[in-house]
Order: sequence, then C-alpha cells, then structure tokens
Amino acid sequence: MLINGQASERVAGDDRGLLYGDGLFETLAVVHGRPCLWVQHMRRMESGCRRLGLPRPDPEQLREESHRVIPRQGVGVLKILVTRGCGPRGYRPPGDPLPTRILYFSSCPEAAESASSAGVAVRYCNLRLGRNPALAGIKHLNRLEQVLARAEWADPAIAEGLMLDTQGLVVEGTMSNLFLVRNEGLATPRLDHCGVAGIMRSRVMALAGTLGIPVEETDLRPRDVAAANGVFLCNSLIGLWPVRSVAGLEQDVRAIPDALKRAVEQERRAP
Amino acid sequence: MLINGQASERVAGDDRGLLYGDGLFETLAVVHGRPCLWVQHMRRMESGCRRLGLPRPDPEQLREESHRVIPRQGVGVLKILVTRGCGPRGYRPPGDPLPTRILYFSSCPEAAESASSAGVAVRYCNLRLGRNPALAGIKHLNRLEQVLARAEWADPAIAEGLMLDTQGLVVEGTMSNLFLVRNEGLATPRLDHCGVAGIMRSRVMALAGTLGIPVEETDLRPRDVAAANGVFLCNSLIGLWPVRSVAGLEQDVRAIPDALKRAVEQERRAP
Repeated sequence: MLINGQASERVAGDDRGLLYGDGLFETLAVVHGRPCLWVQHMRRMESGCRRLGLPRPDPEQLREESHRVIPRQGVGVLKILVTRGCGPRGYRPPGDPLPTRILYFSSCPEAAESASSAGVAVRYCNLRLGRNPALAGIKHLNRLEQVLARAEWADPAIAEGLMLDTQGLVVEGTMSNLFLVRNEGLATPRLDHCGVAGIMRSRVMALAGTLGIPVEETDLRPRDVAAANGVFLCNSLIGLWPVRSVAGLEQDVRAIPDALKRAVEQERRAP
Repeated sequence: MLINGQASERVAGDDRGLLYGDGLFETLAVVHGRPCLWVQHMRRMESGCRRLGLPRPDPEQLREESHRVIPRQGVGVLKILVTRGCGPRGYRPPGDPLPTRILYFSSCPEAAESASSAGVAVRYCNLRLGRNPALAGIKHLNRLEQVLARAEWADPAIAEGLMLDTQGLVVEGTMSNLFLVRNEGLATPRLDHCGVAGIMRSRVMALAGTLGIPVEETDLRPRDVAAANGVFLCNSLIGLWPVRSVAGLEQDVRAIPDALKRAVEQERRAP
C-alpha cells in the first residue's frame, strides 16, 4: 500500500475519508501488470473531485505510484482512494486541504469465463437507494447503502443484487451497472438521482454506438426488467455479465449481441 | 488517540470505515474530564450497531478507554468511532467482523455564553438530504451531505445551516437538530426519512415533557419555520442555541421558555 507516496499500511485516524467518507475512489482491473482503462478512470476521478470541491490529484503522480504498487505481470485490482485529508474538527472542509492518496493492489483471479457465457443469477435487494442529485454518479466513499444491500444474501449462487431507489426505479447492482436488451437496442437506468456512473457503463454505451446499437438512458422499473429480451451487468472488473435469471425469472442470455460481448471483453483489458 | 485500546494515531488503510463509511460515531461533550450523557450516547451507538449489523461494542471497555484518552479536568470533545474493521475485498460485510474502535479527545473551549443568550444567525443550505429510511436517524460515517452543505458558507456570522430533504421538508442543521416554538408547545422534524436522531434532541423532548411543554414530531417546511414564535437548535456540544434569525428573517429568542433553556444547559453537563 502507498499512502501519499510512502509505503505504509496505515492512515491518520482523523482523516476525513474515515470520519465522513469525504473522498472518492476508483477500482481498476489490472492485467499483465497494467491498469486498464486508465484515462477513463482518471477522468471520472477528476470529475468527482470537481463536484466534491477536492483538489484534483496529479494523474502523472498516480500513474507513477500505481506502477510501484502493481507487481510485475500482476492480475487483480488496483484501488485508488483520494480523501480530503485531515483538518480542524467539524464537517466544514478545510480551505486549503492536503488530500490523502491511497493506492493498493489486490491479487485476484480474473472473472471466470463460465460466468460470462452461461450467465449469472441476480436478485432484487430490499434496501433502497436514497435519491440525491448532488451525489448521483460520483464514486464517493459513502457506500453504506451498498454494504447493507450486499449483506442481504449469502447464497453464492446469486452473483449480484439489483437496487431500486426510494421511488421504485431500478438503478444498478450493488457493484455493477445494468443494461436491458429490448427493441433491437439497449436501455440503462438514468443516474441523475442516484447510482454510480460506471466506467464500463460509459464504454458499453460508446461501443454500442460504434456497433450501430441504439442506447437510451431512461426510467426503468422491475416490470421493464422482466419484459426485456435480455439483461446484462457490467463493471471494470467483470466486464459484461449476461444475466440468466432475475429473482428466479429466466432471461435469455442469447439476446445479448455477441459483437457487443466481444467488444466489452476487449475493452475490459484495454490499457 | 486509542485504536482498539492501543495508543496510535493510525488505522489500517483498508478499514471498511474508510473504504465505505461502514461504521458509526458518537461525539460527546467533556466537562471537568468527564464525558457527558454517557449512557444516552452508548444506547444510540448500540441501536446504530444493531441496525447496521455491527457487533455491539462493550460499553465498559469504551468507558475505560475514554478515561484513558480524556485528560484530567479536560474540557472539549470525545469522539468515538466504531467501524466494521477490515475484511475481504468488496461491499459484502465479513461474516465475523473484528470492529475497529477509535477514541480521541479534542480540547476546545465551551460554547460561548453569548451565543446561548443573544442567539445565532442561521441560513438555509442549497444541498438537500436524500431520503433513506434504512439509514435515517443513525449517526453513521456517510456524511458527505453534511460536508458539502457546510462548505456552502464561510461567513463566521452564520453559525449553522438548515437542511431540507429532497421533498422540501426541513430536517435539521448540518450538525444540530431543530425545534420550533409554536402554539405553546414545541415542534421538531420527524426523522424517519433522513437526519440524525441527536442525543440532545431526545433530551429536549424528555425535558419539555417534564416541564409540561407538549412536543410534536411532524413534517415542517420553511414557511413553518418562518411562522414560528421561536426557533432553536441543539446538540450534545452546544446544548441549546436560540436562533435570532433564519435566512435574514428575525426570530424572537425570548419565545424560548427559560426553564427549558436552563434544564438543557444542566443536561448538557450531566454525566
């Protein structure tokens, strides 16, 4: 682990990241010792920093530090956290914050190929996402909703839980974004009230465009999920997961265009 | 600072409190070296732990550790954080978590007497609180809304900012709870959709009962605040702050019953 460029496993006990979740993070796939979709992750981090009023971290410095924490030919996950650092007591952000950068690598086998061909089973979570446009889309450190939603099931046969917001709209999975295949195109939930604007979600939308597949961001309800021709999840680590059942209701994994699956799989490993 | 009973200033960089805000905290006033309203704070922490599925910390152990971090005759603030500790990668809580306890004391002068007699000026924040019954009331570590709201003003003449929820209901201040004096009684916002169930808020309600002052928890809007006979804020550290103006509109600080003010001031310093 590197903390502000120093090898260390520990951060200050009064860091605002810990006290308030005052910061954000990125989770990058690492393949052959190289973080994937680097530029896209840096762009999202910059955008999140701007929205939270955090100084933008230097991407060159993060790049250099990521090289230091990733082992040669490492396969796994690079996590980058940026917090508002320490400061005087209270919620008020310090006028001249000294952000904390934390980078660490976790080795983990790549997503099993079986998942991406046979598809995964998913459920609906009971916990609802609160709606707050000021925080919507940002990959910030306030993630208790995801923690409590993920605590709802232990069955290893269920790969992911879909989350509704307090209005009953389907927003995302606990750790992934959702797409429906319908009417020869794709539909994915709007993220202007809650949810995380995933890097792979953006890439799927861009790749679909390249392949001539129309994509709409719209309000989606469980009945829309049930009526879809196909359903898939995505994130930077798993790439694209076809969904073979939602809350016990079967879905046709063949409805997901093969060209899109191939393009996302390439994208997932792209530098 | 004590971390799991050891003198230390640093916590693990992959503590779930930092990664996800997966934990909660208490902020206690300390007078003459003694934490105030100890039993009430412990009860709230227990209730929060139960709702988040965290093992309940041992209050005797926290008591002993609080004695170790508070200097003799210290005046200030004791902060206690409890997180879900470290664990495997991902949102899913470990089945058998080893929580992290963090205790530290900050010396600070007691709230100036002038504030509590002359009253404070407050504003409305633009940032809205998201509504989520699953987290409402808990003093958890997901506090980005409060941070962003408190970042909205720098004018030292404004002591606090009132926050509305996404439905336009007034909920609380960034670091305090709100009461209105009206119809010979008190009104305070319901906290079933968002907000922190403050210890002093509970005490004010109990003390008002003792004094024969009726209290209702209800939906309140800015127009109700404007129409009130009087307005005050409270928390464990400040006790009761009469409000002399809300968003520039004057309020009569004399409308707040003196007996209640005296009772709260005593309560603030109670063991």
